[in-house]
Parts: sequence; structure tokens; C-alpha cells
Amino acid sequence: MTDVNTDVERLSQNKSFGGWHKQYRHQSAVLNCSMRFAIFLPPQASNDNPVPVLYWLSGLTCSDENFMQKAGAQRLAAELGIAIVAPDTSPRGEGIADDPQGAYDLGLGAGFYLNATQPPWAAHYRMEDYVLQELPALIEALFPVSDKRAISGHSMGGHGALTLALKNPQRFTSVSAFSPISNPSRCPWGIKAFSAYLGNDREQWLAYDSSELMRNSPQGEHLPALVDQGLADDFLSNQLHPETLEDAAQASNYPLTLRRHEGYDHSYYFISSFIDDHLRFHAQYLVA
Amino acid sequence: MTDVNTDVERLSQNKSFGGWHKQYRHQSAVLNCSMRFAIFLPPQASNDNPVPVLYWLSGLTCSDENFMQKAGAQRLAAELGIAIVAPDTSPRGEGIADDPQGAYDLGLGAGFYLNATQPPWAAHYRMEDYVLQELPALIEALFPVSDKRAISGHSMGGHGALTLALKNPQRFTSVSAFSPISNPSRCPWGIKAFSAYLGNDREQWLAYDSSELMRNSPQGEHLPALVDQGLADDFLSNQLHPETLEDAAQASNYPLTLRRHEGYDHSYYFISSFIDDHLRFHAQYLVA
Repeated sequence: MTDVNTDVERLSQNKSFGGWHKQYRHQSAVLNCSMRFAIFLPPQASNDNPVPVLYWLSGLTCSDENFMQKAGAQRLAAELGIAIVAPDTSPRGEGIADDPQGAYDLGLGAGFYLNATQPPWAAHYRMEDYVLQELPALIEALFPVSDKRAISGHSMGGHGALTLALKNPQRFTSVSAFSPISNPSRCPWGIKAFSAYLGNDREQWLAYDSSELMRNSPQGEHLPALVDQGLADDFLSNQLHPETLEDAAQASNYPLTLRRHEGYDHSYYFISSFIDDHLRFHAQYLVA
Repeated sequence: MTDVNTDVERLSQNKSFGGWHKQYRHQSAVLNCSMRFAIFLPPQASNDNPVPVLYWLSGLTCSDENFMQKAGAQRLAAELGIAIVAPDTSPRGEGIADDPQGAYDLGLGAGFYLNATQPPWAAHYRMEDYVLQELPALIEALFPVSDKRAISGHSMGGHGALTLALKNPQRFTSVSAFSPISNPSRCPWGIKAFSAYLGNDREQWLAYDSSELMRNSPQGEHLPALVDQGLADDFLSNQLHPETLEDAAQASNYPLTLRRHEGYDHSYYFISSFIDDHLRFHAQYLVA
């Protein structure tokens, strides 16, 4: 995608660690609705010095704000000279399909970073194309950033980061995740979302299952990958299945580092405790 | 206060930087209502190694959660071995007086860290005694902490930290604030709150005005004091008056360092950018 509508409205800006946190609204052609995103620009960013970008994908119910307010990533990102972009987690607004029961794990706030094929979702739920194509094109047109990109995320966003990176290794230098939904084809959150968005043909689901993708990833397309998982995470045994991802990595000899952390849960208290490790991990590949 | 009811209910706990963030509910005798507070215990804290405590007082509309979720203080507090305690900003619950118009700057969420003398506030609004006496007694009875205390806060909580420290220098090693309401007797927020809580005798207000207190502080009762103020703060010219505090410090030769920061606003993006400086400042006096 080279043509992107660069009309944006700035909603807020806050100086942060010598850089800037800014929120914008724009009309997404891919999602066919108005979308909000946030960017953190480190102090080094300038037209003469475009900086690399870490894309952060948030979990169920989140918006662009959770990570920017709670992860504590700006301190080290400012030091390392890395921009961070946080999109929303689904299309939103009037006329956008939502779960009729208002469930937190389907519809608004639960886009699962895929392109839906089923009604009523297919009209707007194309978060895969949005995050992979339209948003980076917009970011790279508007801001002093390079085309070096890394991707990370939490829970549903960890699933998003892993699947987008595994399917498009040429787009990213590296991938990481906190507490990702690693095998959505076989967990309740994934089965519910994939049934609705992709239909009942389970073959279609495998293109959005990071364990499947990692197991089948050809040697030449491997990216450095870091995953952190808390062992006191309430969703660990039922929803996340890191052991399946680990098995897949072993089968394909994928360069995955998966770390388990005693006592940590699914919250931003966990993410903030280890976000510096993720930033330093990505910086090895993003910052020349 | 030596007798304190140590019955508490733990509401949540999250491992954070090797330590723990925990929220509790307890019945406050001083406020005559149920109150929530949060504590961050660094990994060093144990019965054999009680750690000092930084009390953090939040601003208008906040609870114990804002600082714990957004300030990014745990990383360095864990490294330095400092506990952090965040009380709520007012009494709360059924039967607690609130502003009839539901204003954000009076009543619930706006206790101003004073002991109210006027009806209907006097029955519960005694945040000064709560933060100064009851809460530390409870904290020191329940947790592996020492009686070394520092105090800091933001906006209304910066006012609270400065006034409590200036009136009770023997209770604290050091005081700091972000964007404090420095001269509440002469700004709209302060005039509204003090009129309601303390009545119309302005002489009574001076006991809760940090500029007045600092101007009259005797040499032997000075504490190391650090204040940070953003210059893009929307409330700077109308509500905060750091220049009055600075004049007061000069008049009494008070050891105040007041720093102004170009571009920073009133938000947690400002606080998180400089919280490490405050932690290191307090650590000089808290950590032997």
C-alpha cells in the first residue's frame, strides 16, 4: 500500500522523557471507520534521524491507552531511540458490528488482528491489513521514522504480534510477546473468535495460529523471538498454551526464547516488570 | 496513635519488579468509613530487613490506583529498596458527604489532606489525621517497614505532601511534589475547598497553605524539599503558583529545589518522566 490518506487529527500530546506521546484520529480505508492510535516519539526522532518503530498490539478490551499509560516503556525507548506505535484493538464506532451480548472477547475491543471473512464482521474487521499495511504506511508518511519495524503485544495482542510477524517476516526485524494466546485454534477465546470471524472451517484458522505458523516456518524466514509468561497468570492453563508454541519452535528450530516467571500474573504489573528486556531485545535488531 | 485496628482485607496483589503491589481495604477509625489503600513492597522487604516508606498523595479525582498504575515508580523503588504507600484522596462510601453538584474539586476524591471543621464535612473529612497518623500506624504494624518516612504527591497531593511535611518535620526525612497547589489560600481550587471544609475565617486556612508554612518555617525544622513543575501545565498560572513557594523558601532560607520543565504538562506523562529523580532524592535520606 503506497497511497494512504494522511489526514489526521491530533487529539492530545504530552511531553514524556524528552520525547512526545501523541494520540491521533484518522479515517481508515481498510477498516472503513474512524480509528484512534497513539505514538511515542523519542527525543532523537527528526527528519535527519528517522527512528525505528516498535508496534505494540494490546489485549482484549484495551485501546491505544493501556500500554502508553501503564507499561512504563517510554523511559528506555527514549534512551534507545525507538518510537512506539499503539493501535486500537478493533474497529469502533456507529455501525460497527459488535457481539449482541456485549461480550468482552468478541467484537469491539476484540478484533484478534485478523481479516474477518464472515458476516456481519467482514465489513469492518480487517485488523490484520490495518496493522500490517495501512497504519505503518500512515506512520511512515507522517512521522520521522524509518521502515525498520519490530512488533510486540500482550495476550490477544501477543497472538497478533506473533502471527503477523510469522506470516510477514520481511516486514519486521524481530518479534516479542507477553502472555500470548499461542494456540488460539484450541482455546476458548480463540475458538469463539475464529468461529465468528472466520467461520467453521478450521483449516482457515491455522493461518492465525502462531503455534501452527511457527511449526511450519521455513528456516530462511525465522525472526528473533522473545516470549514472557507469568506463572501466576489466571489464563495460563486454559487460554495461553505457551508449551505448544515451545514445541512448535523446537520442531522448526525457530529461534524462540520463552521465559517463565514465578509469581507474575496477566496484568500490566507483569508487563512493566519486563518491558525493558523486550525493548533491549528489539533494539539489537532495530538500532543499527 | 499507638492503637490501630489491623483488620484488613486484601483486595488484590500483583508481583511487580520482584516485589509486590497489593491493595487493601480497612475500617478507618479516623475517617469513620471503609478505606482502600495500596502498597508496593520492594523485594528487599522482610522482617529482618524493614524498608523505609515513601507516602504518595494523589491529586483531585484520583484513588490509590493512578500512581501505582501510571507513574512507573516500581522499577527504581525495587532497586533502591523503598516501599510506596498510596492512600485514597478522600473518605468514600454511603453516607459520606459529597458536593451536591458532583464537582470534581470538592467532596469525594477531593479531601485536600486536611481536617475539616465545617458541616457536613467535619464528620468524615479528616484526611490529615488519616495520612499522618492512622495509616502509617497501620502500615508499620502490618508490613516489614521501618519508621523512616518520606512524602510526595501531585497537584492536590503535592499540596498535601508539602503541608503535612512542613507541619510535622519530625515525621519525615524529606518531601517532594509534582505540580503542587502551592498557595491554595489564593487559588480557585483552594478557596473553594477551604471555604467549604474550614469555613470563611481565612486565618484558619493558613495552616494548610504550604507557601505560608514554608515562609514561617523555623530553621531547625527544615526538610530537604524537591518540587517539579511543567511549564505546559494548563493549571500553572491559575492554580499552582510555584513562584509563591519559591519566594517563601527564599524568605525562610528553606532548602527547596524547584525545577521548571519546558513542554511538560499536568499528567502522569510528566510524573513518570521525573519520578526516578524523586525516588533518588528521597533515597539519600531514607536509605541509610
